[in-house]
Amino acid sequence: MGNAGTREDPATTAADAAGVSAARLGRAEIDQAQRRLAGRVWRTPVVRCEQLDALTGSRLWLKAENLQRGGSFKVRGALLAVGELAASTSRGVIAQSTGNHAIAVALAAREHGLPTIMVLPSDAPPTKIRRIQETGAEVVVAGTVLAERIAVVEELRELHGYDVVDPYENPHVVAGQGTATAELISQVAAEGGRLDAVVVPIGGGSAIAGACLAATGHDLAVVGAEPAAVPAFTAALRAQEPVTVRAHYTVADGLRPDRIGRLPFELAHRRVAEVVTVREEAIADALRAALLHARLLIEPAAATALAAALEYACGRGTDVGVLLTGGNIEPSLVSSLLAER
Amino acid sequence: MGNAGTREDPATTAADAAGVSAARLGRAEIDQAQRRLAGRVWRTPVVRCEQLDALTGSRLWLKAENLQRGGSFKVRGALLAVGELAASTSRGVIAQSTGNHAIAVALAAREHGLPTIMVLPSDAPPTKIRRIQETGAEVVVAGTVLAERIAVVEELRELHGYDVVDPYENPHVVAGQGTATAELISQVAAEGGRLDAVVVPIGGGSAIAGACLAATGHDLAVVGAEPAAVPAFTAALRAQEPVTVRAHYTVADGLRPDRIGRLPFELAHRRVAEVVTVREEAIADALRAALLHARLLIEPAAATALAAALEYACGRGTDVGVLLTGGNIEPSLVSSLLAER
Repeated sequence: MGNAGTREDPATTAADAAGVSAARLGRAEIDQAQRRLAGRVWRTPVVRCEQLDALTGSRLWLKAENLQRGGSFKVRGALLAVGELAASTSRGVIAQSTGNHAIAVALAAREHGLPTIMVLPSDAPPTKIRRIQETGAEVVVAGTVLAERIAVVEELRELHGYDVVDPYENPHVVAGQGTATAELISQVAAEGGRLDAVVVPIGGGSAIAGACLAATGHDLAVVGAEPAAVPAFTAALRAQEPVTVRAHYTVADGLRPDRIGRLPFELAHRRVAEVVTVREEAIADALRAALLHARLLIEPAAATALAAALEYACGRGTDVGVLLTGGNIEPSLVSSLLAER
Repeated sequence: MGNAGTREDPATTAADAAGVSAARLGRAEIDQAQRRLAGRVWRTPVVRCEQLDALTGSRLWLKAENLQRGGSFKVRGALLAVGELAASTSRGVIAQSTGNHAIAVALAAREHGLPTIMVLPSDAPPTKIRRIQETGAEVVVAGTVLAERIAVVEELRELHGYDVVDPYENPHVVAGQGTATAELISQVAAEGGRLDAVVVPIGGGSAIAGACLAATGHDLAVVGAEPAAVPAFTAALRAQEPVTVRAHYTVADGLRPDRIGRLPFELAHRRVAEVVTVREEAIADALRAALLHARLLIEPAAATALAAALEYACGRGTDVGVLLTGGNIEPSLVSSLLAER
């Protein structure tokens, strides 16, 4: 393990190990992923909400991946990636994650009968950790930033000989996540609509990279949403490569990675039309709006996308899709956000 | 107005005025209602939830009418009934309601440019009253029991010459509400499933009556759910006719009518396979389960159906549909129910 790049860019190893090249991923991989996932994930609904439409003067199309198996869109990429490993001679899988990728990989590994170890930050929501443990997976807690988790993943990999399912650098993961946006585009078309833009949250980058792949061939603005507290994609755009940012606290636990993945960056940096950075109060407001107007419980990462969409859509009079990525949230946080109102 | 029956049965007048006969309503009226509502209401999703399935050992199919326009399935019947009036020479509409029927009629009347007066109980949720007022409708508050509201409706009708859209005795309303169950049945079939039962909450009775119409020709158990605090349908079954029960407090504000409508009773009393009476704690538990497992915000009336479905489905290993009728709930109630947990 370890090459000259490891210290500066901990993601390089995983990307190289997977033999990944962004050039190998395109619309065809999304189509193939959709075929392979058919019947294995829910075809989640696209929800309309008159009150949100009235608020923005646009039409919002909410892709409700909070209703997905495992409570987030990440089960899509996990099923594909773990399925590949299970078809080979894998003895087990390891993944690091802020939560949802780990839940998804644990679910997928259980379906394939593979043992799993998940590495999460110490500030991961207890609900997410419990959901992982319910699948029978082992959970290891390591620090709060990406580099700390990646170091532990490497140790565990050498110790157990398990395969790593990277949440950002694995092309199956990125293609799988892209099927959520592809499904949204076709569901809107089936309703006689046509999206002008799709708004996607940015954590490690698999959602936005997948969305860029799914948008190939469509006249569609891909808009990223990231918390102002952890502007990792904005910083990468400025530096023209992934860089580690100083992460301030954000309620959006799913968007806490302090560095965008290399593969996602390569796929997304030219295709993304705009990045909206979202303040903490706007995340909380959007989470309440989803609950009280659209009657959907979403987690703060998804609310970050909704907040950005409300800002982006305002006064445009266009059709805006929003990837509501997940719904794994602490009950106590919902309760306190409602009480704050 | 007023005939010999008025004192004993306040609903008779409305039923007679509408020239209603249960014999005139059948599956054909549901099909016609579906055609007339196409494109005017959302085709709400049917949501699956692995955690609820695991809890019951059955497969639950949740018809998410909490995501419907106006926040409940009642917009279906209201659009049909108000549409009929608008096509005649109506000068305006009046309705009494525990809340959702009034929101729905107010929305429908606004779409048809008709003035409206809504009569609600003094214990109606402020959120429901605000939603009615937002449409431009006038709200009158009258007592807490059905007979008090009906008396005020009669006064207002004579004063203004408006037409009454009764929530229980109007055949268009009942047929419209039935389209929610008809849609659920066909959506499950489109997914390759087949419902063994459908669970529907009972307030004034339009939902269960509509469900019975929609179930015509299907081998499907129609199961009613009512709060133990207001067992109006159970009492009517025992008496073999609608009777007024003593209403104790229930959190399910939509199920507070203390008497089942005559038309709903006639349509439903032989077809309903079973009535599950639900305790207050079970309503609260089901509301939390919908939110935290299925990520749907539902109101207590819908949670009453879910609670009954969880009990009914437990250990049967069958496919059970649940009509989640609405999602209009006070934020403070959600907050306190989550905190109670």
